[in-house]
Amino acid sequence: MADIYLALIHAPVYNKNMETVATSITNLDLHDIARCSTTYGLKRYFVVHPAEAQRLLAKRIMGFWQEGYGADYNPDRQEAFSRVKIAMNLNEVYAEIEAEQGVTPVKVATDARKYANTVTYAQLRVDIETKEAPILLLFGTGWGLLKEDVEQMDQILEPIYGPTDYNHLSVRSAVAIILDRLRGH
Amino acid sequence: MADIYLALIHAPVYNKNMETVATSITNLDLHDIARCSTTYGLKRYFVVHPAEAQRLLAKRIMGFWQEGYGADYNPDRQEAFSRVKIAMNLNEVYAEIEAEQGVTPVKVATDARKYANTVTYAQLRVDIETKEAPILLLFGTGWGLLKEDVEQMDQILEPIYGPTDYNHLSVRSAVAIILDRLRGH
Repeated sequence: MADIYLALIHAPVYNKNMETVATSITNLDLHDIARCSTTYGLKRYFVVHPAEAQRLLAKRIMGFWQEGYGADYNPDRQEAFSRVKIAMNLNEVYAEIEAEQGVTPVKVATDARKYANTVTYAQLRVDIETKEAPILLLFGTGWGLLKEDVEQMDQILEPIYGPTDYNHLSVRSAVAIILDRLRGH
Repeated sequence: MADIYLALIHAPVYNKNMETVATSITNLDLHDIARCSTTYGLKRYFVVHPAEAQRLLAKRIMGFWQEGYGADYNPDRQEAFSRVKIAMNLNEVYAEIEAEQGVTPVKVATDARKYANTVTYAQLRVDIETKEAPILLLFGTGWGLLKEDVEQMDQILEPIYGPTDYNHLSVRSAVAIILDRLRGH
């Protein structure tokens, strides 16, 4: 059984015009994805932002729910945030996982775009259930991870589709659906 | 093939202490659930709130994305919001669906709590694919729909579980997962 890690990348990502930008950390990305990560038994949820002010903002938001009033008011939220870590960049994420696991994770990019060489949900689900190597799922904010970054990952998950051609989901919805496809009952 | 409708109920719902309250309409509930509804081919997404000021707020937010600047800036969002309707209460929702379909919908409650008589995702998925009667999925904000309201619906969907006991998902995440379980590829 593989441990699963998740990283939410705020930079570098695309904006709507396919320019490379940094997006802001948003309150509900912290909450919703922490709660999903806890529901689906993830080992850790990394929030990745290169700007120190943004990392401090995330820590302040989570601090409210982890200590004092917020923690008493809603212990479920405290539990969810206990697995969140803030990181400056992906190298810091890789180093943390390697320190915990002794090996580097299998890096799995997610993207709404189609890539030639994608892994299916069914295949990755079986890999998680039968292999030991930790898995790191990477999600981009904004209009997604840079093409060159996606292509250098070990695997690329197929895009999410329903019965329509429309696949403009929020990253929060995409995380929920992907974790359910990989680990839902 | 059944048409699917979704209603997000802001009142009456429970708060954390199981008191009956109204919650506020939030921007990301509009966006995320409209985008999910479009991805999974739903017929309509009703946002239900008894307070006129709240309904006007929702209309103002959506108006930005449906006309003028927002519509030009992001046509995907315009498309998503084209299927959203604001309603005062469930009777208004039922009447709208009956006017469109000529029959009342099968009302399916969703809840994180366990009820004795629940329908599985697999069963409801087959019903949608093989029957004609429209389906209305009901989601509560806050800490969920009132027990007495859930119990008077035609069916109750089983709660969402991953491999853990934790099932404190946001309503946004729950909608994404449930639509994917019912209509995902």
